[in-house]
Amino acid sequence: MSSIHLVVMAGGSGTRFWPKSTSKKPKQLLAFGKGGKSLLAQTLDRFVGVVPDNQRIIVTTELLADAIKADAPRTKVLAEPQGRNSAPCVYWAARVVADQDPRGVMLVMSADHYVPKVDAFRECVRHAADWAKSHDDLVALGVTPSRPETGYGYLRLGERLNGGPSKVEAFVEKPSFERAKEFVKAGYLWNGGMFVWRADMILRAFDEFMPEYKTAWDSSNAQVTRAYPQMTATSIDFAIMEKAKNVVTFPLDCGWDDLGSWTSLEGVADAIGARHAAGVLSAGELIAVESQGLIVDAPGRLVAVLGLDDVIIVEQGNAILVAKKDRAQDIRLLVDAVKKLRPELA
Amino acid sequence: MSSIHLVVMAGGSGTRFWPKSTSKKPKQLLAFGKGGKSLLAQTLDRFVGVVPDNQRIIVTTELLADAIKADAPRTKVLAEPQGRNSAPCVYWAARVVADQDPRGVMLVMSADHYVPKVDAFRECVRHAADWAKSHDDLVALGVTPSRPETGYGYLRLGERLNGGPSKVEAFVEKPSFERAKEFVKAGYLWNGGMFVWRADMILRAFDEFMPEYKTAWDSSNAQVTRAYPQMTATSIDFAIMEKAKNVVTFPLDCGWDDLGSWTSLEGVADAIGARHAAGVLSAGELIAVESQGLIVDAPGRLVAVLGLDDVIIVEQGNAILVAKKDRAQDIRLLVDAVKKLRPELA
Repeated sequence: MSSIHLVVMAGGSGTRFWPKSTSKKPKQLLAFGKGGKSLLAQTLDRFVGVVPDNQRIIVTTELLADAIKADAPRTKVLAEPQGRNSAPCVYWAARVVADQDPRGVMLVMSADHYVPKVDAFRECVRHAADWAKSHDDLVALGVTPSRPETGYGYLRLGERLNGGPSKVEAFVEKPSFERAKEFVKAGYLWNGGMFVWRADMILRAFDEFMPEYKTAWDSSNAQVTRAYPQMTATSIDFAIMEKAKNVVTFPLDCGWDDLGSWTSLEGVADAIGARHAAGVLSAGELIAVESQGLIVDAPGRLVAVLGLDDVIIVEQGNAILVAKKDRAQDIRLLVDAVKKLRPELA
Repeated sequence: MSSIHLVVMAGGSGTRFWPKSTSKKPKQLLAFGKGGKSLLAQTLDRFVGVVPDNQRIIVTTELLADAIKADAPRTKVLAEPQGRNSAPCVYWAARVVADQDPRGVMLVMSADHYVPKVDAFRECVRHAADWAKSHDDLVALGVTPSRPETGYGYLRLGERLNGGPSKVEAFVEKPSFERAKEFVKAGYLWNGGMFVWRADMILRAFDEFMPEYKTAWDSSNAQVTRAYPQMTATSIDFAIMEKAKNVVTFPLDCGWDDLGSWTSLEGVADAIGARHAAGVLSAGELIAVESQGLIVDAPGRLVAVLGLDDVIIVEQGNAILVAKKDRAQDIRLLVDAVKKLRPELA
């Protein structure tokens, strides 16, 4: 029987939740709403009873390793010398799992996603793990779309396999709104970046599509600081999933959201207890007069808004963000400037 | 020869600079821009060499008396039991001056106005004081308009008196923009709420137009806590100036501004060193991307703005204000709500 292993990718250093997120405290270490637990801690909680503590691995960067260890003290942490996107991260984790059990099943998850319906999530993961144990397939969890979202990639499905998953015919890039509507109508699923496979199968795929990784790893005698600089920085999607022929998917309907920007809080406001008459209030107090569609996060502060619609207002430390909501994807423009003027606040 | 006395009205508790101003620290105790001194301290400084320390009186409310004394330790402070607008305040000060010198000249000033050109201001005050010494007139300083402002009252002028001021034919209420343009063209002056007169002359005017004040004062044996509740709460403009026939004015051209709301900082930004590429920055740091016409005051904070024009952003204590600039006059709507939710922040 194959053992089961959780691999949590926690190296992200995104800027889209600045100033709540910073380079030293990225999204996976943040709590949203009234929960109190970080997204990373919530991710680990999701696998209680599914994967034992000693078969869990978090992969992050050296910069974040101490903070990650403090947030997840019982979990093994692999610290990458530098972030090189998800493919090297998955390869390293696969080698670690394979050393223990070459046919071990890996559940590859992001540390910073949001999953409100945990039971549905766990059921889907169990189906995927069962399939991967006994089939030489790579499973991508496919999120049932709740809207024609343009911010996600999509999975185009092929035939349904007997009693199990559907074949994935193609990974499709983020579409226009018109295309997204067609995709939803045609039954495409969102690519949630969550994968399930046996270690031997993903390593075989790496050997086929990224043979340099094995060369780098073996020639450095599995010394990550020597191997990493030789491994192309690329995503697991691009390196493997878009090329492999043995990709299948199980549909996942659990309210999943990747929390890609401040505006994504609008979709999960009810679930995290952050709904306010004037929009979303995930921390602090809000008085809004003739203002609608706000997104406010200001722990311990009173925010008073007058005559403004569709604005994001965030306070953290010594930084205050005020941004038009339709510019939520461009907050990095501000962070770039902050890095120059006040690097300690970025 | 008449002695000269400064009377500074410092009882204001306005809400239009909230949250920088609060009920316990109103505008007169605030510093704007890089100056560092409060508006009250700047007001007192303006009379160095004009009025000696022991002939200066500040009138304020009991609520503010301690804070005012701390800001102006060398100046006599009269503490009103409650604010009752400007007429009782002027009456009390006039009685105090008259007790010392019935023909003493009073310079009646607000504690929270802004005067960048001090030399021009002092010259005008000297002319007014000289006139008041030897004429039985009430002098209203008339500010030369720099724009067709709709937020001020105007003085309509009559004949120019020989070598001196002009008669004031009428006090005109705040006009529409069209009327304001006509007023400026016709040579009207702004009513700056600054007055110069002998104590005996203003007391004579009170006896004529507000005889109840003398009755209240004398019957209470000059006990302010007993007299004040019997004195109608009204403004000196309405009680006296609009009715008296012996009102004259000297034009004052000194860049005066009453700092009536956050937007008034735009007019004085250069003078207080607060001009920023994206608007006005009177405290803190500002990064603005695709944003114009901002007014920002956030001491010690970095404010980052993306894709928003014409917005006021203020941080003080635990409160953050974000308001559309054209709603600057309505900030009291927020303060009313703050008083209910978090009275300590109002």
